[in-house]
Amino acid sequence: MAGIKIHGSTISTAAQRVFACLYEKDIDFELVPVDMRAGEHKSEAFIAKNPFGQVPAFEQGDLYLFESRAITQYIAEQYADKGTALTCPSKTEPMLLVWKEVEAHQFDPVASKLNWEIVIKPIFGMTTDPGPIEELETKLVKVLDVYEARLSKSKFLACDCFTLADMHHLPNINLLMGTQLKKHIDSRPHVSAWVANITARPAWVKVLALQNKQ
Amino acid sequence: MAGIKIHGSTISTAAQRVFACLYEKDIDFELVPVDMRAGEHKSEAFIAKNPFGQVPAFEQGDLYLFESRAITQYIAEQYADKGTALTCPSKTEPMLLVWKEVEAHQFDPVASKLNWEIVIKPIFGMTTDPGPIEELETKLVKVLDVYEARLSKSKFLACDCFTLADMHHLPNINLLMGTQLKKHIDSRPHVSAWVANITARPAWVKVLALQNKQ
Repeated sequence: MAGIKIHGSTISTAAQRVFACLYEKDIDFELVPVDMRAGEHKSEAFIAKNPFGQVPAFEQGDLYLFESRAITQYIAEQYADKGTALTCPSKTEPMLLVWKEVEAHQFDPVASKLNWEIVIKPIFGMTTDPGPIEELETKLVKVLDVYEARLSKSKFLACDCFTLADMHHLPNINLLMGTQLKKHIDSRPHVSAWVANITARPAWVKVLALQNKQ
Repeated sequence: MAGIKIHGSTISTAAQRVFACLYEKDIDFELVPVDMRAGEHKSEAFIAKNPFGQVPAFEQGDLYLFESRAITQYIAEQYADKGTALTCPSKTEPMLLVWKEVEAHQFDPVASKLNWEIVIKPIFGMTTDPGPIEELETKLVKVLDVYEARLSKSKFLACDCFTLADMHHLPNINLLMGTQLKKHIDSRPHVSAWVANITARPAWVKVLALQNKQ
């Protein structure tokens, strides 16, 4: 099978989601850096890989994929027997479907907007807009309350194993933990234990190390 | 197998996504109406079914699911041999993963916000906020440009069959077609033919009829 290339940037949360998956699966890949500061993700060459002009793009032989959660799902299915399973025993599989969607539609829209305002904008020399932060923070608290209840009954979100549903949270959780919003995680014992658990995974530590290498 | 109950409202686009799936699969279900105007989706009884207090919730025996796209995926897998397949022949399966995510992360965030402002708010006696509409419309146009290119090479989004990736668009496409934004669909021949094709499906016609019954 042809080698895997990930066109992306180590600072992109979406790319980090894919790197985490490849490390969990213990799959070699080549990182092809895309210079987002120079707008390379909007170049014609990159648009040919992802028509929406967003990193990461996945390349393997003549297969091109985009959308980080589609890439992780593809890797989890294609390399089912390698590394961490990332799926549940079949009885709890419907819960994996549910909690993957919860990450995508309840957690991510709130967490990624907060991280954009508080963490990413300053990196790119832009000014944080305090306007939406309060409303987003209220939404984040509500989401974390649901997570606290869920994680008091289940070790991980979908079942008692670490799955894609947990893994997809890592990049945004990691950024939130560097902001004042960390207090909302620290004050919820089950969420806090879950965050400590998933951020300590060797695969995630490798993703962070990758960032320092580039 | 126990009967399926859908707790929801026929005016909810998320519930419509699930109804369309059940009709495509030719699966009987009981609609348990949730009075959203009366705030019933925020009641304790409903929160026990979906901790995020959003319709629809799926019930089958002791299995409870929420998040519309998790429910449709579950139904597509569980009833794979019944009604419309809703998945691709395996060679194009990665493209189904990609285009389901495109609907969820590129189309829906734009289309559902536009429909909320233009269609839903007036129904609930709220005032449309013209502020975000222009920016959202620009984003919608960009998404539709990508769709036009994709649909010039492929009959449906993921492959040459109608799949979940197409079906998930139906509720928001249907609302957009009743607004001034219809022009952006009409002016793109491949998008326009795709919309005509998917909105004419008998399963979708039944979803609209269900709305008139309630």
